[in-house]
Parts: sequence; C-alpha cells; structure tokens
Amino acid sequence: MKKNKRVGMLMDELMSNPSRLFESRHFCSKYDIAKSSLSEDIKLINEILDENGSGHIESIQGVGGGIKYIPGISRERIADIQKELMDALSDTSRMLGGKYLYTSDIMFDGHFASNMARVFTQKFSSLGADYVVTVETKGIAIASQTAFMLGLPLVVIRREAKYSEGSTVSINYFSGTNERIQKMSLAKRAVEHGRKAIIIDDFMRGGGSLKGIKDILEEFEVETVGIGVAIESRLPERKKVDNYVSIIIIDEIDEENKIIRMTANNNL
Amino acid sequence: MKKNKRVGMLMDELMSNPSRLFESRHFCSKYDIAKSSLSEDIKLINEILDENGSGHIESIQGVGGGIKYIPGISRERIADIQKELMDALSDTSRMLGGKYLYTSDIMFDGHFASNMARVFTQKFSSLGADYVVTVETKGIAIASQTAFMLGLPLVVIRREAKYSEGSTVSINYFSGTNERIQKMSLAKRAVEHGRKAIIIDDFMRGGGSLKGIKDILEEFEVETVGIGVAIESRLPERKKVDNYVSIIIIDEIDEENKIIRMTANNNL
Repeated sequence: MKKNKRVGMLMDELMSNPSRLFESRHFCSKYDIAKSSLSEDIKLINEILDENGSGHIESIQGVGGGIKYIPGISRERIADIQKELMDALSDTSRMLGGKYLYTSDIMFDGHFASNMARVFTQKFSSLGADYVVTVETKGIAIASQTAFMLGLPLVVIRREAKYSEGSTVSINYFSGTNERIQKMSLAKRAVEHGRKAIIIDDFMRGGGSLKGIKDILEEFEVETVGIGVAIESRLPERKKVDNYVSIIIIDEIDEENKIIRMTANNNL
Repeated sequence: MKKNKRVGMLMDELMSNPSRLFESRHFCSKYDIAKSSLSEDIKLINEILDENGSGHIESIQGVGGGIKYIPGISRERIADIQKELMDALSDTSRMLGGKYLYTSDIMFDGHFASNMARVFTQKFSSLGADYVVTVETKGIAIASQTAFMLGLPLVVIRREAKYSEGSTVSINYFSGTNERIQKMSLAKRAVEHGRKAIIIDDFMRGGGSLKGIKDILEEFEVETVGIGVAIESRLPERKKVDNYVSIIIIDEIDEENKIIRMTANNNL
C-alpha cells in the first residue's frame, strides 16, 4: 500500500475514534509496517492536524502505551466560531422578554456544537475525568459531542425521576434563572463512587443549576474537575460555582432598545 | 506542499464538516492546485474511505456544484456494532421490571451513538430532508450525531412547553409504552412550513410516540420522509407508523428466566 493511502486510512481510523488509545502494533500489523514507519506517519499526521488547527496525536510510550487522537481547535478558529455565535445571537427576534433569549437552534446546531465541544475537549482533556455530565435538555448536543471527543461516557441528569432510569437520587436546588426551587434526579447506576466529572451546560446565569449538578454528583462522591458553559450571563457577577469556562458572555439584553451586547471570552 | 500532506488536510477539512458542500475552487486556491489534481486527490480519498468503510466523497458537477463528505458505514462494521449493542443490552441487571430496560448509558455512549448515526446517515442522506427531529431525552445524542453527519439542523421536541422556547404548538398523544396520555410541544420558530424531516428516536414499542412526532410536524406542514430508531420491540407487531428503520429488535424480555432475546436488523 502506498504511503499516502496508508496515512489517510490511519487518519480516518484515529479521527473516527477520538481519545481512544490504539496500540501501535494494531497499525503495524494492519499495514505490515515497522514501528519506525508508523512514527513517521504519525509525525506527518501531526503536521496536518497542526496546520489545520484540528488537534494532535498523542503518543504514549511504554507498556500500556499507544497513540490517540485528541481533537482541538486553533485560536483563530475559536475566534471565528465566537464571531459566528455572536452574529447568530444578536438577532433581536430571539428576545422573548424577561431577559430570555431563544437559543435552542444554536445549541442543537451541529457546526456550533462540534466546535464548542472542541474548545472544551482541548481545555479538559488532561484532567483525567471519567464522565461528562449535563442536565437535560439544551446542553445535551454539546455535552455529547464533548464526551465523544474525550472518549468518555455522557451522563444526563433528568429533571424528573423516570421509571426507565431505575433507582435514582434526587435533589432540590434554587434556580435563580427561573426564580424557583427545581429538582434533578440521577440514576444510581449512572456513575461509580470516587470518580471525576466534567460538567457541560448550555447557559449559566447565577450558577444555581451548575451548583445543583455539582451537589448531586457529590452525593455519589463524584468530584467535579471542570465546568464548561456555552453562554454565560455577565450578571450577577457573583456565581455559585467557580473555575468554569464559558465561550460567549452576554453583557446586557437591552429589551427597550433591542440590543444584545456580548463579549467573546479571549482566554480560551 | 507534498501530496500526502495535502490529501490529509483535505480529508480533515471534509470529515470535520460532514455533508457540507465545498466549492472546488476553495481547495484549488487554498492549495494552489489545478482542478485535475483535486480530482485525483478526491479519488484517493474515496479509495481510503471505501477501504475503511467510512463513507464517500460526493462530487456534484456544474454550477452550484462542489464536493462533500457523506459519512457511511460498511456492512461489516454494522454487524460489529449490532453485536456490541446486543452484548451490552443482554446484561440482565438492566431489567427494571414491567419489561423496561435501563438503556441510558448505551444511548449516550459516543461510540454507539456515532456508529448508529452513521447507519441512519447512510440510509437517509439522499432523501432531501431539511431537519432531523427527536423528542427529549434519550434519543438526543444519536439524533444530534445524525443531524451533524447529515449537515442538518436538529429540532428537539419538548415534553413541556418551556418559556425559553417562545410560542409553541402542543399536542396530546397516547403512549402505549407508558399507558397514558402524554404531551409534546414544539417551538413555532423551530421549523418552516413545507419542509421535510427525518425522525430519530431511541426506542419504539407501539410507535405512539413516533406517531405523535409525525402529527406535531404535520401541524407545521412538515412531512416525515424517514424514521430511524435504535431499538425496536418486536411486540406489538402492529405499529402506529410504517417505513421505519431499526438497528436492534428486542424479541422478548423474559423476566422470570432472566433472558433478553434480541435480533439484529439484517436489512441495513
């Protein structure tokens, strides 16, 4: 097989299975090549990914080692996505009153979801997390893309305990966004004690919902090691969680003058 | 730039943007190559994808034409995935009683979701659909991967009308699975009249829920052109919808003897 065909097949297999560790000998025996040739191929693939700003191949040496593809995104592409997101959000027909914006189409858009997932994957891939966790419904597309890219199971907390979830643990928490007590419910068999989780959600105002997710995870002794939100509201300044990463910050929704003021997070 | 690097960069850009039409001149000017060289590169990429069973590059000639990557999956890989799904489902600790199975972990698993999405993408890519539609919650990961691969917006029908959805249209329908009247609610701005939709869901018993989705879409004059479900129950034999595609069929959940009998759909 010619080298350029082999490199393409390697790329396809690695990129279709992000964060999955492949033993080197899997490829060496599949393509009947020496380890040195595989290293050269991986070097070339890393040049390709680097040029496109699409992530990198990690090589892990020694016993239990191998290679895996970690999706990523260049600063330039992050800035492009942020601009596209702000353009989409600035459509004033999204204003629903009471400072609410219609954002479902954006949160479920594959282009936006996959690129935001790349941002979170790049930020969180080295944290050693065991799960990606979200609460239904609007963050599920971004969270599931992030979980896929990180090679982790996605855990979806439900609003109501469903029979199809088996035994569950439920908590009540105060949502500032909705100005009322809300409930969330997690299946007992969804997580194991002593593990680590990354939380992904579509929106944060005061952080009550994220704090609720953190709390329910603590009931299972699952530690939150990272939090990613697509859109953050500038106000209130004091949030109920810290150490989160947001992509877009909404500074103000001026309903009278029909203006939505936004800022891109430049620290991604 | 060397050919093998260029081919890799092309592959990465096409595969990161499934079903997106790129004008040929985008690549010709980016890599400073003639159209004939691009055609040769695309031919090589198609050989690579064909060998891996990962889909194909479609070339559309003439004005408004270009190239796009359509994800796919070989018969062999479909059989592998079906076997893996049946292995996972056969774990009898999933039995919740009343013929219910715990399946959330499977439905939100990135490996399963992306491969099932490849099956649906391959089946439905030529139907000219405008949307992929699901109802919350368990089908969202598969539906969002399918929508991403088809390059279509994902529309998520809610159980309850939420304020953040703006004006909605709601219907009541009879769910045989839950043996009661249920509600679903679709945002008015989520779809345009006269369009076509593919419905994706995690599970079908009698088809009441899918019929409900079809009905609510008809309220918007949106025609259902394809239905894909991950798991189908053999019984009842008479379903409320036809022309659906399922991946796994559950023949029987024998709670007394702790056996789950399943069949893989061999017509995919």
